[in-house]
Amino acid sequence: MLKMRDEPNYELDVKRPDFADWTTNTNEITRTFLAANLIPDLINIAGGLPDPGVYPSGEIAEIAKKVVEEHPEQILGYGPVEGFPEFRETIAKRFSTDDLKLTKDNVIVVTSGTQGLSIIGKALLNDGDTMTGQFPTYLGAIDAWRPRNPDFRNMDLTDPDIDLADAFAGSKFVYSVPNFSNPTGVQVTTEMRQELVNEAHRSGTWLVEDDPYSSLLYEDKELPKLIDLSARKQHSGIYDGPVLYLGTMSKELAPGLRIGWIIAAPEMIEVLAKAKIGSDMCTAGITQWIALEAMRTGLAEKIRPAVLDLYRQRRDDMCAAMDEHISDWFEWEVPVGGMFIWAMSKDCELNTDTLLKYAMEQKVCIAPSSVFDAHGEHRRALRINFTHNSSEMLVEAIRRLAKALKAMDADNA
Amino acid sequence: MLKMRDEPNYELDVKRPDFADWTTNTNEITRTFLAANLIPDLINIAGGLPDPGVYPSGEIAEIAKKVVEEHPEQILGYGPVEGFPEFRETIAKRFSTDDLKLTKDNVIVVTSGTQGLSIIGKALLNDGDTMTGQFPTYLGAIDAWRPRNPDFRNMDLTDPDIDLADAFAGSKFVYSVPNFSNPTGVQVTTEMRQELVNEAHRSGTWLVEDDPYSSLLYEDKELPKLIDLSARKQHSGIYDGPVLYLGTMSKELAPGLRIGWIIAAPEMIEVLAKAKIGSDMCTAGITQWIALEAMRTGLAEKIRPAVLDLYRQRRDDMCAAMDEHISDWFEWEVPVGGMFIWAMSKDCELNTDTLLKYAMEQKVCIAPSSVFDAHGEHRRALRINFTHNSSEMLVEAIRRLAKALKAMDADNA
Repeated sequence: MLKMRDEPNYELDVKRPDFADWTTNTNEITRTFLAANLIPDLINIAGGLPDPGVYPSGEIAEIAKKVVEEHPEQILGYGPVEGFPEFRETIAKRFSTDDLKLTKDNVIVVTSGTQGLSIIGKALLNDGDTMTGQFPTYLGAIDAWRPRNPDFRNMDLTDPDIDLADAFAGSKFVYSVPNFSNPTGVQVTTEMRQELVNEAHRSGTWLVEDDPYSSLLYEDKELPKLIDLSARKQHSGIYDGPVLYLGTMSKELAPGLRIGWIIAAPEMIEVLAKAKIGSDMCTAGITQWIALEAMRTGLAEKIRPAVLDLYRQRRDDMCAAMDEHISDWFEWEVPVGGMFIWAMSKDCELNTDTLLKYAMEQKVCIAPSSVFDAHGEHRRALRINFTHNSSEMLVEAIRRLAKALKAMDADNA
Repeated sequence: MLKMRDEPNYELDVKRPDFADWTTNTNEITRTFLAANLIPDLINIAGGLPDPGVYPSGEIAEIAKKVVEEHPEQILGYGPVEGFPEFRETIAKRFSTDDLKLTKDNVIVVTSGTQGLSIIGKALLNDGDTMTGQFPTYLGAIDAWRPRNPDFRNMDLTDPDIDLADAFAGSKFVYSVPNFSNPTGVQVTTEMRQELVNEAHRSGTWLVEDDPYSSLLYEDKELPKLIDLSARKQHSGIYDGPVLYLGTMSKELAPGLRIGWIIAAPEMIEVLAKAKIGSDMCTAGITQWIALEAMRTGLAEKIRPAVLDLYRQRRDDMCAAMDEHISDWFEWEVPVGGMFIWAMSKDCELNTDTLLKYAMEQKVCIAPSSVFDAHGEHRRALRINFTHNSSEMLVEAIRRLAKALKAMDADNA
């Protein structure tokens, strides 16, 4: 007999269980970012968004119809956890080189670079395990791993005294964004890439190469991928080394597709598939087949020259405005690729969290360095995006930022 | 100066860090399932798949093109973490009743019921926390929570002596599938639904109502949702109670869209959004807009009568074959909805993990009860799917299963 109890008096404020601990560790700055989108006339140079004008929407609309007509059961039914074999094979071919031998067993399709990072965390991190991340670090990567409560070790590849053996020791994996690192825009040198790969092989540590920006190269030459350098150490057979390479359609074509991939040793792909089953079972069929058709027809390559011209011009206009208006406070390197300029304050006392408040009053939203530090301690820099807004808006944003700097100085005087 | 080290001798078998502990806890039966798909002429009645013939692929192809043309920037750019407001509002309206007052703040769009379960686990479970699940439990739910290493407490709602206060006490949340529970096909009684809701309100425990199958009701009447019963206890205002309701397009329209939703108190939706940001940032635009257009035009309702007729007939043909061929070994209730028949062995010594091996030799794949028990101990039952295969194939599957049972009996004699 079911044990019946008295009908309770419903109280709206009944104590409910606490949310998981990590949910209270998120950065408060994120709220400011979210609020920024609701403020009229605010210019947002904090985000990492492409210009919406670059999406080839007409072509994608036609492709969308075509792929559903051609593959209805595959697109509308459940698909394989790792992604459709045809798509995995196409990705394997695209990234294969004389050194790097890939088959579909080296590839898992994910719904975004973020999902890639999330399932890597699930696959490797027990609660509280140590991992090492290139410092400063992509905010989204910190968010993806936060639910595993990692002991996050910072690794500054620009530090001339860095000891990679120390940086790698005891870490479940090491995270790097070698091309135009988010947030700093830095292109990691070939020498340092080689050292990272050497240390990964020497210590047996998994090395995560996050590469969303490589298609956005405005000058100079492409440098070798970590996974290619790693493959050169392998004498034969399909790739079985320690590098996990993450790619995505988000920057080269359209982020709304939510399509990315991880290329890694087959044993790693198997474990990542276990993590993906419990995350979302499989990736939507229509987005995979659109991405595959776009890859086959070279759609991203077709739009690339115009995209590069647009973003290169904006970067140059942005840097010119920064030279004119904020060079008393900040210094920066002109990035050779990607979406961001990393501006470091000349005054080590300048706090960019504080500057954000002044900037918001001037209706410009910037990304302070604290959000790119898992420990929240870096306060001397800004990440500035130059791809989403027009040159006119970017110049106006920097004018407003200069006003904010002057207002902050006046209050501190 | 970068500290250079000797070039290492690359060894393929260098010791790499262990994968996370939970990855070795997964059920070995899953491998059998995966292998089953590669065996020619095998009939698979283990899965939970719809019949691919029911998808309205022509309509969806047209909708896909239309929505990309009409909303190119929304579909190809990054979308809001919680889903597009238009879609969230449409879902809120669809599930609102006189008692249940919903706005878009009560809704988060997810890429599937599985992602819904995964982010609920992230939001509520610290590593090793206790949760309670209706027993036996959906395999995918166990997989979704495994990376949090939960202390999984079984709750058998068919046990006449169940004490819900004990079942709920100390649990971060309680999980139930009231409509045609996966795997048992049972429709939880209205009385028990009321008791679950009462205990959730009394104890303040979050109560997860997973409802993928409600559109597949073959006879009888729909019973009230847990969230509706919970809303009746709230005197005014938008819903703020303890029930989290999970819905999906997977069973009513097409699983390949990967679109689901969670309806819950706004404070819960906010935390779920934090968990979703780190899981995949946002859901693909095209799948959201296809689902929204399908909801607006009643596409699922249009195909439903034919789907119900097809599945009802298959269920009846399946039960007739089971009566004829396997009723010496098993007993079952004819389910009023859903996709599954739960067959319990009359002999408490019969082990369905063992039967699976005999069944695979006869080229039929079944789902043994052990995979629906987080502790892997339930060995007396089978879950049989009747929606994916034709009636002819289902009858043949049961004939093969009878052969497997006879072979197992002969070996045990």
